[in-house]
Amino acid sequence: MKTPLLAGSDADADADADADATESLPQRLGNPVIGIIGSGDFSRSLAIRLVASGFSVVVGSRNPKRIPKGLFPDGVELRSQREAVDSAERVIFAAIYPEHYSTLVGLRDGLAGKVLVDVSNATRLDDGELSNAEQLAELFPQSRVVKGFNVISAWALQTGAHDGSRQVLICSDCSDSKATVVQLTRRLGFSPVDLGGLVASRDIEKAPLHLFPSWEGATLVTFLLFLFFYGYNVVKHVLLPYLAHGEHNFYQLPLETVNQTLPAVALILLGLVYLPGLVAAVLQLARGTKYKRFPSWLDRWMCRRKELGLMSFLCAGVHAVYSISLNFISPTNINLTSFMNQNLTKQNVWRSDLYLSCGILGLGVLTLLALTSLPSVGNALNWREFTFMQSGLGYAALTLSIMHTLFFGWDFAFFPEAYRYYLPPVYLLALILPCVVLVGRVLLALPCLALRLAKIRRGWESSHNQPNQQRQQLLANQM
Amino acid sequence: MKTPLLAGSDADADADADADATESLPQRLGNPVIGIIGSGDFSRSLAIRLVASGFSVVVGSRNPKRIPKGLFPDGVELRSQREAVDSAERVIFAAIYPEHYSTLVGLRDGLAGKVLVDVSNATRLDDGELSNAEQLAELFPQSRVVKGFNVISAWALQTGAHDGSRQVLICSDCSDSKATVVQLTRRLGFSPVDLGGLVASRDIEKAPLHLFPSWEGATLVTFLLFLFFYGYNVVKHVLLPYLAHGEHNFYQLPLETVNQTLPAVALILLGLVYLPGLVAAVLQLARGTKYKRFPSWLDRWMCRRKELGLMSFLCAGVHAVYSISLNFISPTNINLTSFMNQNLTKQNVWRSDLYLSCGILGLGVLTLLALTSLPSVGNALNWREFTFMQSGLGYAALTLSIMHTLFFGWDFAFFPEAYRYYLPPVYLLALILPCVVLVGRVLLALPCLALRLAKIRRGWESSHNQPNQQRQQLLANQM
Amino acid sequence: MKTPLLAGSDADADADADADATESLPQRLGNPVIGIIGSGDFSRSLAIRLVASGFSVVVGSRNPKRIPKGLFPDGVELRSQREAVDSAERVIFAAIYPEHYSTLVGLRDGLAGKVLVDVSNATRLDDGELSNAEQLAELFPQSRVVKGFNVISAWALQTGAHDGSRQVLICSDCSDSKATVVQLTRRLGFSPVDLGGLVASRDIEKAPLHLFPSWEGATLVTFLLFLFFYGYNVVKHVLLPYLAHGEHNFYQLPLETVNQTLPAVALILLGLVYLPGLVAAVLQLARGTKYKRFPSWLDRWMCRRKELGLMSFLCAGVHAVYSISLNFISPTNINLTSFMNQNLTKQNVWRSDLYLSCGILGLGVLTLLALTSLPSVGNALNWREFTFMQSGLGYAALTLSIMHTLFFGWDFAFFPEAYRYYLPPVYLLALILPCVVLVGRVLLALPCLALRLAKIRRGWESSHNQPNQQRQQLLANQM
Repeated sequence: MKTPLLAGSDADADADADADATESLPQRLGNPVIGIIGSGDFSRSLAIRLVASGFSVVVGSRNPKRIPKGLFPDGVELRSQREAVDSAERVIFAAIYPEHYSTLVGLRDGLAGKVLVDVSNATRLDDGELSNAEQLAELFPQSRVVKGFNVISAWALQTGAHDGSRQVLICSDCSDSKATVVQLTRRLGFSPVDLGGLVASRDIEKAPLHLFPSWEGATLVTFLLFLFFYGYNVVKHVLLPYLAHGEHNFYQLPLETVNQTLPAVALILLGLVYLPGLVAAVLQLARGTKYKRFPSWLDRWMCRRKELGLMSFLCAGVHAVYSISLNFISPTNINLTSFMNQNLTKQNVWRSDLYLSCGILGLGVLTLLALTSLPSVGNALNWREFTFMQSGLGYAALTLSIMHTLFFGWDFAFFPEAYRYYLPPVYLLALILPCVVLVGRVLLALPCLALRLAKIRRGWESSHNQPNQQRQQLLANQM
Repeated sequence: MKTPLLAGSDADADADADADATESLPQRLGNPVIGIIGSGDFSRSLAIRLVASGFSVVVGSRNPKRIPKGLFPDGVELRSQREAVDSAERVIFAAIYPEHYSTLVGLRDGLAGKVLVDVSNATRLDDGELSNAEQLAELFPQSRVVKGFNVISAWALQTGAHDGSRQVLICSDCSDSKATVVQLTRRLGFSPVDLGGLVASRDIEKAPLHLFPSWEGATLVTFLLFLFFYGYNVVKHVLLPYLAHGEHNFYQLPLETVNQTLPAVALILLGLVYLPGLVAAVLQLARGTKYKRFPSWLDRWMCRRKELGLMSFLCAGVHAVYSISLNFISPTNINLTSFMNQNLTKQNVWRSDLYLSCGILGLGVLTLLALTSLPSVGNALNWREFTFMQSGLGYAALTLSIMHTLFFGWDFAFFPEAYRYYLPPVYLLALILPCVVLVGRVLLALPCLALRLAKIRRGWESSHNQPNQQRQQLLANQM
Repeated sequence: MKTPLLAGSDADADADADADATESLPQRLGNPVIGIIGSGDFSRSLAIRLVASGFSVVVGSRNPKRIPKGLFPDGVELRSQREAVDSAERVIFAAIYPEHYSTLVGLRDGLAGKVLVDVSNATRLDDGELSNAEQLAELFPQSRVVKGFNVISAWALQTGAHDGSRQVLICSDCSDSKATVVQLTRRLGFSPVDLGGLVASRDIEKAPLHLFPSWEGATLVTFLLFLFFYGYNVVKHVLLPYLAHGEHNFYQLPLETVNQTLPAVALILLGLVYLPGLVAAVLQLARGTKYKRFPSWLDRWMCRRKELGLMSFLCAGVHAVYSISLNFISPTNINLTSFMNQNLTKQNVWRSDLYLSCGILGLGVLTLLALTSLPSVGNALNWREFTFMQSGLGYAALTLSIMHTLFFGWDFAFFPEAYRYYLPPVYLLALILPCVVLVGRVLLALPCLALRLAKIRRGWESSHNQPNQQRQQLLANQM
């Protein structure tokens, strides 16, 4: 136990390895020899990175002879797998496909007591069986298997992380071996994250397989909303006019119809960002306590607000570009702006000026919000700034978008022609949810409710949650 | 060699804790048991994060019985506060409101010798009295109080930092306890920053309360400039025409007037970004030395250039969008572009082409500049690149904006009508400062001045600063 | 008490120093005394940062007397160079110009055994002679010279890194001294990167001198392409018409001609992003193995795809802005959009709608791609997500851009006037390369080729590469 502890122990460059190194071969600048089994792409990239960070690397291949010259950088020794394992002082990477782990059993003695790093990925997302790292650990009981580096691409390894914030997920059942790899990771310029025991490798190996998991919900909602409103517009502005009066509006499909659909989608998505917060508040008020969990659907919804917001921003942005582009081909431009251009009165100049201003400002605020969702920007914000951006600016954007829509549809909402075929215009439908959210927010801002909510969130509980009075005191101090 | 090694051993997983852990309960994967007092939101989020990083967590509540199932993740034991304190091996978080710290005095013995982490925030920005952490330290003299994690939101804790660059400010009077918490922070995937002794907790606790402190100045300046020019435009283009000839231009207020104001503000702000640099250079030239401090207002101004620049970029961007939008409603569009459209000659096509090109390129360059102000982009730049962007591209943007304005206002500047009511057009006023800056920059680029300045910045001093000649030699080598 | 203190103490700041510190002067909170030789700007900024991180700092100046009050923050002692060296416990920064290192020889004894940090930059990029750090190491053989901090600007030191991802390149021949500086760096809130032995200092010192080295290629290609197509347009639309029929189209030079050139450049650049990938695939298919190196020009090209892509995005973006701006001055607007406006038929409304949609969507996709090139965004992506963005979305953008161009030039391609002076229109020339790339990609997607390629990339080799069959088995398992 002692040596390994000492080994794992040192601060930021594994010391005993250093010690040996500096004693045995001073020219090595106190950097330990790292072993890599396998001579494929990942092995090559890893070797490049290790050498660049001042390590000596020994790559073990089945037949080192036929590896072409210059495939590996200088400072890398190409040896047989056994030689590589033996000359590696402490850490050995297994850079071969998991299905070939069994071919290494011959090296068991050489690997005993050393840190064996599994860098493989899962091939499927299904659960149940052991992870590659766990299988490796079963094959080599005397080695200390550490999982890591699978989330880093060969590309990132070669070029090196250009800021120190590229994360490497690491886990192992041997904490000092893990510490060694953690330090190694940091020396390579990455940011190690310790995920605990080797069992975590099951998730770590699957990490590279996920495709924007957090975006599924938001994308689906956006898609469905778009589908609905696009269909609605097609029916109202293209299909029915054609069937009823043989009007040929089909040319509107690619631009006009899309551009009438996008703002509706953006507006509703923005409403959906702030709805869950209201629901949560109402729930807490109704229950009179914050010590009951929210239903899981609400939790999930809360966790997806960022994605919903960005989707709303996307739609709003594209809407802006479309609106501008539509002016290129004014003759066919049936959107209301140019409609105004034909019969323009000071009154609806006012209107159009106002709705343009609201639209521009609303989009501007949304842009600022979207900026804070960049990790590097968000990281620089403190609580209050983040709340100010998300809640304060968020509701400002919502209000501006609603005003934009109101000013836009103002008097047109009173033209009978707007209700052609008894179908209300899209922007009216799109306004319902956001307005509900806005009104709800205003109501929650009423002192009576706001104060009670604040109390609840500080830990206070309404009596009907409390068997005895003194319980309240007991819980009031939970942060 | 031994002690430092042991010492070093603590580096990335507090070793002694690990040691105990691995010996006493191997199944724990060498992760120490962390204690949390309090079962509120922060406690819950912290527990989730700790478990996710492979720690065992014991949460101490006044009455663990009534915490609803599933509120805390598996791997978290809910116990009484005393049990939690006792079973925690080294680190205990105090996740209750500071006003209730006194309720913990009963646990004093249990907490003795252990690391007690204060995660609370200040409630007010006023100074003077002790920080929460200092009060906690007074209550528990035998415990080692460490301040930290208050800058991390419960939200960030639950989701985990997605890159390793989220900073956690930490301070303590006990350096080894601090080191322990620093390592813990890093294992949770955050980036700890050691701010020294516990007295620093006064600032750390206030950190989350600040609202964009560095932006106050720039925002105020922008607001005042906008106010002034907007007022000026209203008087010149709306009020006076109405009073004098009863012209009704009020409909211009929301768009046209704003759009005449924004470019002026943007231009002057851009000038203000580069003015302090000139002032500093002139000061150094006049003093003949760089070893005298700048007046504090100049220092402060220098520190706010980035914010001023971004504000200028914001105004320029909105100006661009407004200009485009104004074309939607051309009939009422009185801005000069469309004015040109009516009586267009090849000559002022040239003009308009040029001023549009300058405007577009200027905005493009400003966009590149704004990009480098993103932390993740700026971090990837080295000195020379940063200087090239800020100084080189910056002055390019300034020059292009000035040309944009000049081409725009060229012949209009010579129409008497431009000076209606004896008020010069806004763009002339807006040009003064930027032109001064540009001329100043050019003058400073003259060899005679440039060389002298370079010498001064390398440490040389003009004789009148020097009692004796050999002093110069003495100081010439200060970097 | 001793062990834990030692233990903890080493974690993030060299232990022995801590030990002394805490024993000799407890008020120092276990933070070691850091020495700085030199009292210039860098020295001042460094001192500010060190004090902010809780260190005690002693600055050594030739004559501390005449340093103005308040130039250095409180907590910094101004002493003679000798006193500074003596009172520094372990780490001393040499913040003077390299040409004055020789003036320090008098301090040799005081510096013996201590860590001497060289923060200087190279003045020229030429290679050959020793680096400043190496020269310093020769001057002070008993000191342990560590290179570092030269990549950090005085400015970044003063303000402190706002996220933990600002990298500091460090190297030294003494690994434990290096470890000390590495820990120090981290405590200052930066992200240290160990580049190995002191010889690496030659590169480190030159790092700040490079000006976007990775951009040279892409910028040059873009510039040449722009030059060629601009010239081509000038000849075709301005020069020849003038010479042949005396048409005066010179006013087109600043906007129209640029705007006809940009999309061609953007399109070809986008093609150049995906061409090398195809070439590589074809090479592997032809060779029947992945164990032969690519020619170096292909490697370099592969490494520059990101820059080429961003350049293409830049051109496309400016093209969009120009196209919009051109509508300001429609009377002179000869670009085809407004040309359509004159004689508009339902048929080419369709066309224009489609080509606008494709253009907008294409630019939108390019924007998403550009976003992922932000370090902080890219860091958050895993393999599969990155591949999806780069390859999937990338080809989507390419396809959309090609369609945009096709729809744009559709029937015009069949007007004889388009081939005036026997010169084909630019967009036809620009389409060739991208179409080739797209077709190539489609061919490689054919099962026969795709499967073989997949096999090769998994390590399989075609027989003609293999002396004996069993070799294949041997190599098949290289990752």
